[in-house]
Amino acid sequence: MIEELPGVKEKAEAQESTRGATPDGPKGKWKVIGTRPIRHDGADKVTGRAKYGIDFLAADLLHGKILRSPHAHARIKRIDVSRALAYPGVKAVLTANDFPPLPANLEDAPAVDMRYLPRTVMAKDKVLFKGHPVAAVAAINTHVAEEALALIDVEYEVLPAVLDGVESMKEGAPLLHAGMTTKVMGTDTGRISNVANHHQLSLGDVAKGFREADVIVEREFRTASVHQGYIEPQNATALWNKDGKITIWTSNQGPLVVRKATAQLVGVPYSHIRVIPLEIGGGFGGKITPYLDPIAALLSRKTARPVKIVMTRQEVFEASGPTAGSYIRVKVGATKDGRITAAQAYLVYEAGAFPGSPVGGPLRCMFTPYRIPNVEMDGFDVVVNRTKTTAYRAPGVTNAAFASETVIDEICEKIGMDPLEFRLKNAVVEGDRRPDGTRFAEIGCVEVFQAAKDSPHWNAPLKGKHRGRGMAAGFWGNGGLFSSCTLGVNSDGTVSVVTGSVDIGGSRVAMAMHAAEVLGLRAEDIIPSVGDTDSVGETSVTGGSRTTFATGMAVYEAAQAIKRQMIERAAKLWETTPEDVDLVNGVFVRKSHTDRRMTFKELSGHILETGGPVVASASANPKAGGPTFVLHIADVEVDEETGKVDVLRYTAVQDVGQAIHPSYVEGQMQGGAAQGIGWALSEEYVYNSQGAMVNSSFLDYRMPTALDLPMIDTIVVQVPNPGSPVGTRGVAEGPVIPAPAAIANAIHQAIGVRMNVLPMSPTHVLEALWAKEKAKKR
Amino acid sequence: MIEELPGVKEKAEAQESTRGATPDGPKGKWKVIGTRPIRHDGADKVTGRAKYGIDFLAADLLHGKILRSPHAHARIKRIDVSRALAYPGVKAVLTANDFPPLPANLEDAPAVDMRYLPRTVMAKDKVLFKGHPVAAVAAINTHVAEEALALIDVEYEVLPAVLDGVESMKEGAPLLHAGMTTKVMGTDTGRISNVANHHQLSLGDVAKGFREADVIVEREFRTASVHQGYIEPQNATALWNKDGKITIWTSNQGPLVVRKATAQLVGVPYSHIRVIPLEIGGGFGGKITPYLDPIAALLSRKTARPVKIVMTRQEVFEASGPTAGSYIRVKVGATKDGRITAAQAYLVYEAGAFPGSPVGGPLRCMFTPYRIPNVEMDGFDVVVNRTKTTAYRAPGVTNAAFASETVIDEICEKIGMDPLEFRLKNAVVEGDRRPDGTRFAEIGCVEVFQAAKDSPHWNAPLKGKHRGRGMAAGFWGNGGLFSSCTLGVNSDGTVSVVTGSVDIGGSRVAMAMHAAEVLGLRAEDIIPSVGDTDSVGETSVTGGSRTTFATGMAVYEAAQAIKRQMIERAAKLWETTPEDVDLVNGVFVRKSHTDRRMTFKELSGHILETGGPVVASASANPKAGGPTFVLHIADVEVDEETGKVDVLRYTAVQDVGQAIHPSYVEGQMQGGAAQGIGWALSEEYVYNSQGAMVNSSFLDYRMPTALDLPMIDTIVVQVPNPGSPVGTRGVAEGPVIPAPAAIANAIHQAIGVRMNVLPMSPTHVLEALWAKEKAKKR
Repeated sequence: MIEELPGVKEKAEAQESTRGATPDGPKGKWKVIGTRPIRHDGADKVTGRAKYGIDFLAADLLHGKILRSPHAHARIKRIDVSRALAYPGVKAVLTANDFPPLPANLEDAPAVDMRYLPRTVMAKDKVLFKGHPVAAVAAINTHVAEEALALIDVEYEVLPAVLDGVESMKEGAPLLHAGMTTKVMGTDTGRISNVANHHQLSLGDVAKGFREADVIVEREFRTASVHQGYIEPQNATALWNKDGKITIWTSNQGPLVVRKATAQLVGVPYSHIRVIPLEIGGGFGGKITPYLDPIAALLSRKTARPVKIVMTRQEVFEASGPTAGSYIRVKVGATKDGRITAAQAYLVYEAGAFPGSPVGGPLRCMFTPYRIPNVEMDGFDVVVNRTKTTAYRAPGVTNAAFASETVIDEICEKIGMDPLEFRLKNAVVEGDRRPDGTRFAEIGCVEVFQAAKDSPHWNAPLKGKHRGRGMAAGFWGNGGLFSSCTLGVNSDGTVSVVTGSVDIGGSRVAMAMHAAEVLGLRAEDIIPSVGDTDSVGETSVTGGSRTTFATGMAVYEAAQAIKRQMIERAAKLWETTPEDVDLVNGVFVRKSHTDRRMTFKELSGHILETGGPVVASASANPKAGGPTFVLHIADVEVDEETGKVDVLRYTAVQDVGQAIHPSYVEGQMQGGAAQGIGWALSEEYVYNSQGAMVNSSFLDYRMPTALDLPMIDTIVVQVPNPGSPVGTRGVAEGPVIPAPAAIANAIHQAIGVRMNVLPMSPTHVLEALWAKEKAKKR
Repeated sequence: MIEELPGVKEKAEAQESTRGATPDGPKGKWKVIGTRPIRHDGADKVTGRAKYGIDFLAADLLHGKILRSPHAHARIKRIDVSRALAYPGVKAVLTANDFPPLPANLEDAPAVDMRYLPRTVMAKDKVLFKGHPVAAVAAINTHVAEEALALIDVEYEVLPAVLDGVESMKEGAPLLHAGMTTKVMGTDTGRISNVANHHQLSLGDVAKGFREADVIVEREFRTASVHQGYIEPQNATALWNKDGKITIWTSNQGPLVVRKATAQLVGVPYSHIRVIPLEIGGGFGGKITPYLDPIAALLSRKTARPVKIVMTRQEVFEASGPTAGSYIRVKVGATKDGRITAAQAYLVYEAGAFPGSPVGGPLRCMFTPYRIPNVEMDGFDVVVNRTKTTAYRAPGVTNAAFASETVIDEICEKIGMDPLEFRLKNAVVEGDRRPDGTRFAEIGCVEVFQAAKDSPHWNAPLKGKHRGRGMAAGFWGNGGLFSSCTLGVNSDGTVSVVTGSVDIGGSRVAMAMHAAEVLGLRAEDIIPSVGDTDSVGETSVTGGSRTTFATGMAVYEAAQAIKRQMIERAAKLWETTPEDVDLVNGVFVRKSHTDRRMTFKELSGHILETGGPVVASASANPKAGGPTFVLHIADVEVDEETGKVDVLRYTAVQDVGQAIHPSYVEGQMQGGAAQGIGWALSEEYVYNSQGAMVNSSFLDYRMPTALDLPMIDTIVVQVPNPGSPVGTRGVAEGPVIPAPAAIANAIHQAIGVRMNVLPMSPTHVLEALWAKEKAKKR
C-alpha cells in the first residue's frame, strides 16, 4: 500500500540509486545534480581577476594599522597618542576610548559572542594576549601608518600570564578577568576562576558500564592550537558617510554578522551598515569575527575618508582565532566480543583570552558514531593569555576524536578485533539516540564503515618496515540557520540566482545546479551571484557546512516558484489551464496536445507579452543539517632516526547525502583531510616563556604542501538526507575530524607507540620512541 | 448602490482629497506618499562619494579613444592602423572589420534600433556625419591613445553632404544610404530617398472642418537640433573575461538595453554580459544607446584587460544623440465662439544619419489636449548628414507644440478670446478619444487648465514696456514597459528594496516610499538600491516617465506580499489565524484581542523563529502609463535693441496623478521647464558649410544657467491615475513641452511679433523685429 502514496516510490528509487558508495555521476532522478559543470567564478579566479578584499580601491583611501600589545598580560596604565597624531600623513588615531557606549541589550550575531567582541577588537585597561589591539592609526599610506604606531606611547604594568589550560584552572593561577565566575551548564556558580564554562553530559550509568566491560583503556592527551591557515589575511575597508550610513567592503564568511556586530560596536542602527562581500581567500570558520571592520569604520568617521586595514600574516597568527589547544582524558570500556559498554571524557579546551572554546563540539560529536549506553563527559572552557580561539572546521571535534579514536583502536588491539568490524558492530543506525536525546533519522554510518571495509585501500597489502595502516571515524551534525535568495528569468532563457551566501568552496555553481535541476536547464544557463546585505534577504554565515544544504533549499524552493509561473505563462500562450502544462527536461509540454512543445528558452522570449518579468524569492530556515559520518584510512612510514612521519596513502570516506557537485565534494574531503594531516603531523602554535608565539609565519608554522601529501583518495557515500529536497548533507567539516587519529593509529602499527600528543612532529615521535625504549630497558 | 462595491468609496475619497491643485503634503489615505523624505543617495551625491562611470577604476585598466570622421559625408577608401599599432603603449586598434558578423535575427532592445546600431557604433565603407567613429585605440593612458589616433591613416573620398531635412527630401539630394526606400505607415514604397518613414494620421474630414471654421491660421516653423546637455559624458568600461563572459560598468539609463544590444554586436549570448550600472549624471533619454560599450568590449577581448572609454564634451555633442531639428507647417481652424473645427500638420524631422527621428511623438501628442473632430498629420522621418538623434524628454513633441500652441494663440487673438477660456472650451475629458482611437480614462486636462486660470501668476497684473505674458499647453502619454524588484525584511525592522531601475531623478526614495506606505514604515526604514543585470529580474530603461509608475507598481505588489507574510508570522506568534491579524500604521494588531499589538520592528525580530527570512519578488508590466497634461505661463521682457529675451516669471502646471515625492515632482517640472526655456531661447546646433558643428562646447552651446532663469513656480495637480495602485502618472517628460510656445506667445504680447523659429535667440528676435518694421514701412 505504501508504494501508492505519492512520492514514496520515487523517493525509494532515488535512495536505491544513490545509497552506498557512488563515486560519480548523476544518479536516479537527477539530471544536473551529481554532475561536474565548470564553476561560474572559475575564470575570474584562475586569471587573477577575482576581486578580494585586498584588491579594493577607492578615491582618497586611507590605510589603517593597528598597534598591538607586546605582552601576554598587562595593565594599560597610559596611552599617549599625541606624537603619532602630529606625525605628517597621519589622519587619525583611535583607542578603546573612541568607541561609543555599548547598547544595553546586545543582540546575538551568529558565531560571535557579542559580550566579548568589544574587548577582542580593542583592549581597554588590560591587554590579555600578545597581539591584543591597543590603538589604531589611519594614514595616507601603510608606511606612514606603521611609523606612527611606533610613536604611540603605551605604559604597561606587566602581569604574570598563563598560557596552558590545565595550569589556568589551578588555584592561584593569574586571573584574566577579575569578576569572571564559572557557569556549570549555564548556571552561575559565583566561583571566580579562569574556567568560564563547565559543560556536562551524562547518559546511563558509567560506573555500571565500566563494571560490565572486559577491557578498559584510559589515556590522556595534549593537543596544540592550530590555525586555519587561509591564504588571504583578514581585511576590511569602511566608509562612514556624511549621512551616518556606513559601507564596508570585506572578505568575511558572514556579511550579516559583520553588519550586526559592527553596528553595535560603533553605535549605529543595524541597517545603517551595508556590507559588500568581496571574494574570500579561505575561511574554514576563522573569517567570521569582524576584527577590523569596527576600527576601520570609526577611523573613517574621524577622517571622513574610506579606511582600509589589512592584517599581516603575523597579525593573522597572533590575533585572529585559531582553534583551541586542549588537554583530554578519555576512558572507554568494552566487552570481549566488541560491545562498548561505557565511555568517559574529561576535556579542557583553551578558549584564549575570552570565553568560547569549542568544547561543546566534542560533547555532541565525540562518541556519536557509536551506540554506547553509558556516557559521561565534562568539558571545560578555560581562558588563557592567548588570542581568542574561533571556529575551525568541525570546531573542537578533531582533537577529541584524536583521543577517542586512538583509545578505541587500543581497545580493538586488546580484544583482538578488526577495528572496522568493531565499528560496524557499534555503529549507530536510524532511530538510535544522539547524546542530546534526539533520534537519528536516516543516516549513513554503517554505509560509510562498510564502504571503507570494501575499499581497495583497506584490502590492499601494506609491506615494508616501519610502515603501518590506521583508521579512524568521525561524526559531524551540520548546521541549518537561515538563507534567502532571488531568482529572475532572463528573456534569453537563462536564470539569475542571487543569494546572500558568500562563496568559499563553490557554492555559486552548486546554487546554479539546484535551479537548473528544477527548471530542466544546464548549470551554464544559470547566472549565480552573491548579493550584499542590502540586496538580498537576510542570510546567515557561510559555515557549519550549511550553505549548499540550506541556501540550496531556498534556491530549490524559489526555482519551483519560477517553474509554476512559467507553466502559467505557457498555459496563457496555449490558451489552456496550468494543469494542462508540464515541464519535462526543460521543455514545456501541453498534456492534452503533446505536439505542443516549447523549450524554456522559447517561452522566456514570451514572458513580457504574457504578464511581464518572471521573478521569485524564497527563504529557508531548516532547524539542523543532515548528520554526516566519516572514516579515514592512512598508511604511514616512520623514519625511526628522525621521527618524521610520511603519509604514503590516504583514503577519505564520507556520507555526504546527495553529492551536488562531486568535484567540490571531493575537494572538501581532500581539503579537510589535508588540514587534518597538518594538524596531525606538523602544525602548532609555539610559545616562548613570555607568552609570545615564536613561529608566526608560514616558514615556521608548517602547513603541509602538495609535496608533504599523497593523493587523497575519496569514497563518496550518498545516503540522501530526508530533511533536504535534494538529499544534501553538509560535507565540509566532517573530513578534518578523523585524520590525526587515523595517522596515530597507523604510527602505532608502524612503530608500536601510542601517540598522545599533537602534532606528532618528529620531536614528539622521537620522544615517544625513546620512552618506549626506556620502558623496554626497565 | 455603487458606493457599496468594495474599494469604490475609498477610491472616491482619495480622489476627492487629491483632485485639483494640491501644492504639497500627504492627502487622503496616504501616510508616506506625498511627503518629502531626504533621498537615500543624497549624502553620497552632495559629498562627491557617489560613484559614476568615470570614477571606475580597475587593475591593468586600459584607456580607449575613438578616431572620428572629419567629414560629414565620405567614402572610406582605406584604413591603415599599422603605425598606431606600433606606437609604444598602444595595446590594440579596432575598426569595423573587427566586429563579428551580426546574428541573423536581431532582437529588439527598447529605444535602440538594432538595425542601425552597428553602423552608429562604428562606420564601415562610409562615414555619414562629422564625428562618426572610424577606429578605436586602447592604450596605457588617454594621452598615448590620443596620440595613436593621429597615427591611423584613413583615406576618404569626400561626398556632398545634406544637413537640412527639407533639402534632404528633395529630388537630387545626396543619398546617405544607397538602397534606403521610403516606408509609408510601415509599408515599403520601393522609392529610394532620404525619407525613411512617412507617418500619417487622419481623423474625420479636414477639408470639411476648415470649411466650418470662421478663422484659419496656417504658419510654418523651423527648429534647431538641441542637446540634452547632461553633465556627465557617455562612458563605458568593459572586461572580456577568459571564459567569454563580459562585465560592463557604465552610466546608462538602460542596463538591460546595453546588455542586449552589446551582446548582439560583439557576438556573445545575451546572458554572457553583466552590466553594472553606476550612478548616472543625467540622461533625459540620451543615455540609452550603447555607443561605447561594444567598442570597449572588443578592445578588452583583444587585450585581455579592462578598457575604459569616456567621451569628451565635443564627442558628446558631435556623436551622441541630440533631438531632431525640424520643419513644421501647422494649420488650425476654429469657429468664432472658440471651437476648433480642424487641425493639420506637416512635420519634417531630421533623424540624423540613420532613420529614427521622434516624428511619431507629435502625431500622438500635438493636438491631443483638444477635442478636434478633423485632424490630418503627415510626419516625415528624414536622414541627414548629422549625428543620429535619439530620445530627449517627450521626444519630438516640444518643437511640435511650439508650432501648434503658437498657432492656437494666434487663433485666440483673432477671435478675441482668452487663450485659457479657449483651451477650457476645447479640453479633452474622460471618455474622449485620443488620436489613436483609444478612449481616455480619468484625466486631468480640465483640472490643469482650471488650476492655471486660478493661479496667482495668471491673475497678477504685468506692467512695463516690452513685457508680455504667454501660455501654452501640452500632452504626454507616458510609458509602461516592464520592471522587477525584490524586497527583504531585516531583523531590525528595516526592509531592503532592490530594483533594476537606474536612479536618475530620485527613484530610490520613491521606491522606498511605496514600500513604506504599504508596510506602515517610514521611508528612512527602507533601504533601496539598484541591482545589476545579474541580480534583479529583467527591467527596462529608466525613461518614458515610467519608473516611479511601473517600478513603483512592482514594489507596491512585492510589499503587499511582504505584508501578507508578516501577518502570517504575527498570527503564528499569537497562535491565531492570519485573518485575525491586521497591520495598521506599522503596528500588527490582533483583531480579536486588540490589546495584542506588535510593531513591525518587534515582529521583525521574530522572523527567524517563525519560519525564516521574509522575502518577496514581484514584477510589473503595465501596457501604458497615465497620460499627463501640462500648461506653462511665462512672463518675458524683450530688449528691442539687442533682441535678448529675459524670462521674468514662470509657472508650470501639471497633472502628475498622485505625487509620490512632491520635491522631485517639482524638480522634474522645474528641470523640464528650464530645458524648455533653453530650447526656446538659446540652445542650437550650429553647423558650418562643411557640415561641422561649430559650437560643440558648453561655452558656445548656450544652456541656461541659474542666472538666466527665474524661479520656476509649480502647481502640482493631482488627478490619480486609475491604472496605478497609488495613482501615479509619469511626470518627467511633460514639463518640457509647452515652454518654447509659452515664451513665443509672451514675446508676441511683448513686442507684437510671432516667432516661428527656435531658438528665439537675439539674432532671430531682431530679424523678426526688422521684418515687422519692414512690413510696416511697406
